[in-house]
Amino acid sequence: MSSFREDGAAAVEWVASYLERVSDLPVLSQAEPGDIRATLPRSPPDEPEPFSSVLRDLDTVLLPGLTHWQSPRFFAYFAATGSEPGVLAELLIAGLNQVGILWRTSPALQELEEVTLDWLAQLLGLPSEFHGHIEDTASTGVLSALAVARAVRPGHRVVLCSEHAHSAADKAAKLLELELRKVPVDDEFRLRPELLELDDACAVIATIGTTGAAAIDPIPEIADACEAAGVWLHVDAAYAGSAAVCPELRPLFTDWERADSIGVNPHKWLGVPMDCSALWSRRPDDFRRTFSLVPEFLQSPDDAVNLSELSIPLGRRFRALKLWAVLRCFGRTGLQERIREHMRLASLFEGWVRDEPGWEIVAPRHFSLVCFRREGADEENERLLEKVNASGEAFISHARLGDRYALRLAIGNFRTSEDDLRLAWDVLNREAAVL
Amino acid sequence: MSSFREDGAAAVEWVASYLERVSDLPVLSQAEPGDIRATLPRSPPDEPEPFSSVLRDLDTVLLPGLTHWQSPRFFAYFAATGSEPGVLAELLIAGLNQVGILWRTSPALQELEEVTLDWLAQLLGLPSEFHGHIEDTASTGVLSALAVARAVRPGHRVVLCSEHAHSAADKAAKLLELELRKVPVDDEFRLRPELLELDDACAVIATIGTTGAAAIDPIPEIADACEAAGVWLHVDAAYAGSAAVCPELRPLFTDWERADSIGVNPHKWLGVPMDCSALWSRRPDDFRRTFSLVPEFLQSPDDAVNLSELSIPLGRRFRALKLWAVLRCFGRTGLQERIREHMRLASLFEGWVRDEPGWEIVAPRHFSLVCFRREGADEENERLLEKVNASGEAFISHARLGDRYALRLAIGNFRTSEDDLRLAWDVLNREAAVL
Repeated sequence: MSSFREDGAAAVEWVASYLERVSDLPVLSQAEPGDIRATLPRSPPDEPEPFSSVLRDLDTVLLPGLTHWQSPRFFAYFAATGSEPGVLAELLIAGLNQVGILWRTSPALQELEEVTLDWLAQLLGLPSEFHGHIEDTASTGVLSALAVARAVRPGHRVVLCSEHAHSAADKAAKLLELELRKVPVDDEFRLRPELLELDDACAVIATIGTTGAAAIDPIPEIADACEAAGVWLHVDAAYAGSAAVCPELRPLFTDWERADSIGVNPHKWLGVPMDCSALWSRRPDDFRRTFSLVPEFLQSPDDAVNLSELSIPLGRRFRALKLWAVLRCFGRTGLQERIREHMRLASLFEGWVRDEPGWEIVAPRHFSLVCFRREGADEENERLLEKVNASGEAFISHARLGDRYALRLAIGNFRTSEDDLRLAWDVLNREAAVL
Repeated sequence: MSSFREDGAAAVEWVASYLERVSDLPVLSQAEPGDIRATLPRSPPDEPEPFSSVLRDLDTVLLPGLTHWQSPRFFAYFAATGSEPGVLAELLIAGLNQVGILWRTSPALQELEEVTLDWLAQLLGLPSEFHGHIEDTASTGVLSALAVARAVRPGHRVVLCSEHAHSAADKAAKLLELELRKVPVDDEFRLRPELLELDDACAVIATIGTTGAAAIDPIPEIADACEAAGVWLHVDAAYAGSAAVCPELRPLFTDWERADSIGVNPHKWLGVPMDCSALWSRRPDDFRRTFSLVPEFLQSPDDAVNLSELSIPLGRRFRALKLWAVLRCFGRTGLQERIREHMRLASLFEGWVRDEPGWEIVAPRHFSLVCFRREGADEENERLLEKVNASGEAFISHARLGDRYALRLAIGNFRTSEDDLRLAWDVLNREAAVL
């Protein structure tokens, strides 16, 4: 173990120093397709190399090919954070190398996963009848939920969601051979519940915090319609769900507890490193009926429920350990503090945009995402986006909202400060002036 | 970063000391269902706690609920290893917190994933036309492959596999609403190819190294039949595939390169910590047609192929980094050495069983799995299994082979020595004598 201790110290130092210098690195990788591949050997080594070579090549070979999600000026898509306790928990997870298949293959994994998901449900104000487990991503979570919905309502092959729902819905529907119908949105990019036609439907996906504009579908009306028709309601709150940790933001989540299943990604806005996507359902027995297969080789003398009976993969990592580490090392107040700071920053940025001539806000802001644009042509905004991202000083992304191209600035990194935000705004103005 | 450095040092020390003492711990957790849950608080903390509290509770609260997959006397299912370079790479992965969605969200992730999968294909003797990517588990890999097969051959809704194929086939077929037909096996637990009826089939799953007995389906005959009928052939070599790193074992893999897709789990027998399941296909374009959806918010100016277009989740972890670390720190020769040592140990154990009156071997041994039993009733073997596992000195599992209950001893942990194996054999004999 002496080399493990030595290599481990070097790896910890590498990460510490990376996190110290990450804000100096270009946020979006400046590599061209094939650049990284070209610097790697075409074949694996025959003889063992020391771990120090891996660390060296991480700097010299891979670093130019990294887009720095840990940068405080990563504002694209939905920004994320691998927080320090979460990062170190991944070391423990790998060191223990637990494989959750049956309860007995890791009782601690299974029970900690159930307990931390209960904790998280409490933090978000969800009632105790929700049973939670962890999926890799919300894409898999939506796929699982729709598979259950299809099984619960045989003969009903339609799924409804707004035109702004995440593409995971399209992918899941395709895999499950369900017909996905996109319901038009209102002028605030919310699903129009009066257009829901549920006769042939097995499920509705409603979103709190859509990908494009972080819009909030009208959950109370959708839940009424689903309940009346006996249709499964999945609430996708992959990004925004974490905000429910702040009681003052709970009104944005009105009635989400009426859903049959809810997805929230702690790896998005809660400091847990990729991957950790929470999926709760008030109908875990329906999940079990859909996914349970306990073949002979896995029969065991205890009669515990196994988490593998609720989802697609048979084996699962000990992801609960990193969620546990993050929930403990931040605590309720620490997480609230970070969400509130992001809300403050987003509000600040929104104000800057509103106050500056030549810019406009293009969607109501509910969370930490600001959708805005230069007044003028879409093409100008597209060029502006590319200029800003090519500078490496900040990384933002875009969406099409209605018939307009919009710029998206998403705040979600725990290390983002007001200075970082100001710098991004300065870069936007500088590049806009050049154009 | 000072607390990160301090906490990181403590975490590395925790893992180092864990790996030093893991062989002294009961392999199978002695906990009863609910034990771990009962020792955890019912609610998350309000205030932040130090990371040292997490480490402390890992010892006091979680340790009794761990089944020690890292123990050298873990012989159940298929044994695995989280090797030191792989464990430390997970720390780096989390520290970087890369999210592979599009190529540009992490060029290094995508290109390293393609390159390491090329490297691994070379190590296993697969031809260069296979394109590889990483899935979380072989269950997801089989699901993906069958989804592609279904899309490639519309109107053909039957999948065939042997009665000994992994339950992942059942789960995938259920999700995809395909009819799974189980083909009978011969007296060596191999699929009987003359019984394949491919008229309505879109896919055949053939296994090299079945879960129960590590049997090898007759790939050449199956490939002939699939080629003649235009049916997708998926080869599931999740466990055994790693053995192909040794040229002298390649005859066990004859013709597997004729498959349309192949799955091998480096997290099983190649030292990579959970999760890392390799999936190759010679028809990546069919994968792309099945899974590709690039919505507006993900349009980007480069025209690189994105790995998310080949699989279910939109975002992926930087798993390639741990595969890269393992392939480099062991090298071809280091991996061969470990596989050969496991083959030697398995052969040794098989000899002990054959030489000892009252015991019998119940399946031909090809890899590092030995299937054996006490002569006598199934019930006696079941009781024996429970006694051995309850002792905590070794952990083995079972299978039903034909009409008999068989004990399975699977060697796959890099830390397993001949002494560990001898101890397991002594415990088996001691408990058998008591019964």
